[in-house]
Amino acid sequence: MREIKVVQNILEINQAAADQNRQRLDGNGVLTINVMSSPGAGKTSFLLQTISGLKDKAKIGVVEGDVSSTVDAEKVADTAAAVVQINTRKMPESCSLIADMVTLALKDMPLEELDLLLIENVGNLICPSEFALGEHKRLVISSLPEGDDKPIKYPLIFTDADIVIINKLDLQPYVNFDIAAFRRTVTELNPRARFFEISCSTGEGIENWCSWLLGEIDSYKQRLKAS
Amino acid sequence: MREIKVVQNILEINQAAADQNRQRLDGNGVLTINVMSSPGAGKTSFLLQTISGLKDKAKIGVVEGDVSSTVDAEKVADTAAAVVQINTRKMPESCSLIADMVTLALKDMPLEELDLLLIENVGNLICPSEFALGEHKRLVISSLPEGDDKPIKYPLIFTDADIVIINKLDLQPYVNFDIAAFRRTVTELNPRARFFEISCSTGEGIENWCSWLLGEIDSYKQRLKAS
Repeated sequence: MREIKVVQNILEINQAAADQNRQRLDGNGVLTINVMSSPGAGKTSFLLQTISGLKDKAKIGVVEGDVSSTVDAEKVADTAAAVVQINTRKMPESCSLIADMVTLALKDMPLEELDLLLIENVGNLICPSEFALGEHKRLVISSLPEGDDKPIKYPLIFTDADIVIINKLDLQPYVNFDIAAFRRTVTELNPRARFFEISCSTGEGIENWCSWLLGEIDSYKQRLKAS
Repeated sequence: MREIKVVQNILEINQAAADQNRQRLDGNGVLTINVMSSPGAGKTSFLLQTISGLKDKAKIGVVEGDVSSTVDAEKVADTAAAVVQINTRKMPESCSLIADMVTLALKDMPLEELDLLLIENVGNLICPSEFALGEHKRLVISSLPEGDDKPIKYPLIFTDADIVIINKLDLQPYVNFDIAAFRRTVTELNPRARFFEISCSTGEGIENWCSWLLGEIDSYKQRLKAS
């Protein structure tokens, strides 16, 4: 008797698509970062600072994920080597990018020209943690005005992060955010998380972040060559 | 031949549960507000200010929705008349409260004693806009550090809001947020949205909000009596 699967595991399907994206990215030597945060934590400003910091040092593509609008893609259009906007509105998993959406976006990307791909996910601390996109690194931005308790309330996204960016350092005098306590909470969830403290308004910490990232692009390319 | 429905519409099922919650709330005369925002926009501080502003004037119950932890429930436990925490982690719709979760919470609430129920939803500008809980009013908080473009990027939650709270007014000197532009964008989506500009840190605007809310509780009770 034939077995009929009524419901397939959407996360398994997504993982398969993510694996294919990853192969495609590796085939072109494009280190890819999934950039996640709450709405308004500064993802787009962070992308702009990173693009500017790596100017003439790395060619960067951007995938912009939003429920609606192209405002973020317009902001980065002048500076990135290539930009594709994804609008997730009306899609069933609209609270996150999923791997299939990125597959479509990659078709419009000149991957062979790029060193780095930054995928700006939908502003959300929950859904994006469930869906791999094919990225090499998962990055979460927390901004000081959000409060230092976010890793307690949204643990999964921090548990799976490779990089945790603490943004809006310039607002520290005006808000209650205990950076040491925040780092301690994240480290308990995820000892391998690497932290960067920055301000996209003042530029503080950006040089340090960009120089580390450039090193990661180099090691990634060396690993690809060796394999 | 019998028709077999393989997949039922989850939003329809949710609406039915929401309608039942609403009947139960109306049966007890409890005006209920669904409080939504990004993570860290200040929902819990807003609840605390509202409870304090209505002290001796209204008995208030709180349902706290979080993916994980009880930190918010602990904060309001001393001041509200009743508090129930819902943890949505491991539930399939964990990016939002759904009506069934509220049904369970209402069983632990002394509804007959309450005038007002505040439901703090999960911090998310996407999923909560899809799921009615049985509330009479939908309230969205936007805080200045998030930026004034949130209604463009997450339109649905603003389109369906009865009340839009602009929070963290005290940070206005340090961030770029055009309040007039924000209000204009929301009003274009939703002309019936009512705005309140507040700071939960300084207390600015709280008296005005609480006095309006008290009037709404009165009108609600009068409408119930008349019907």
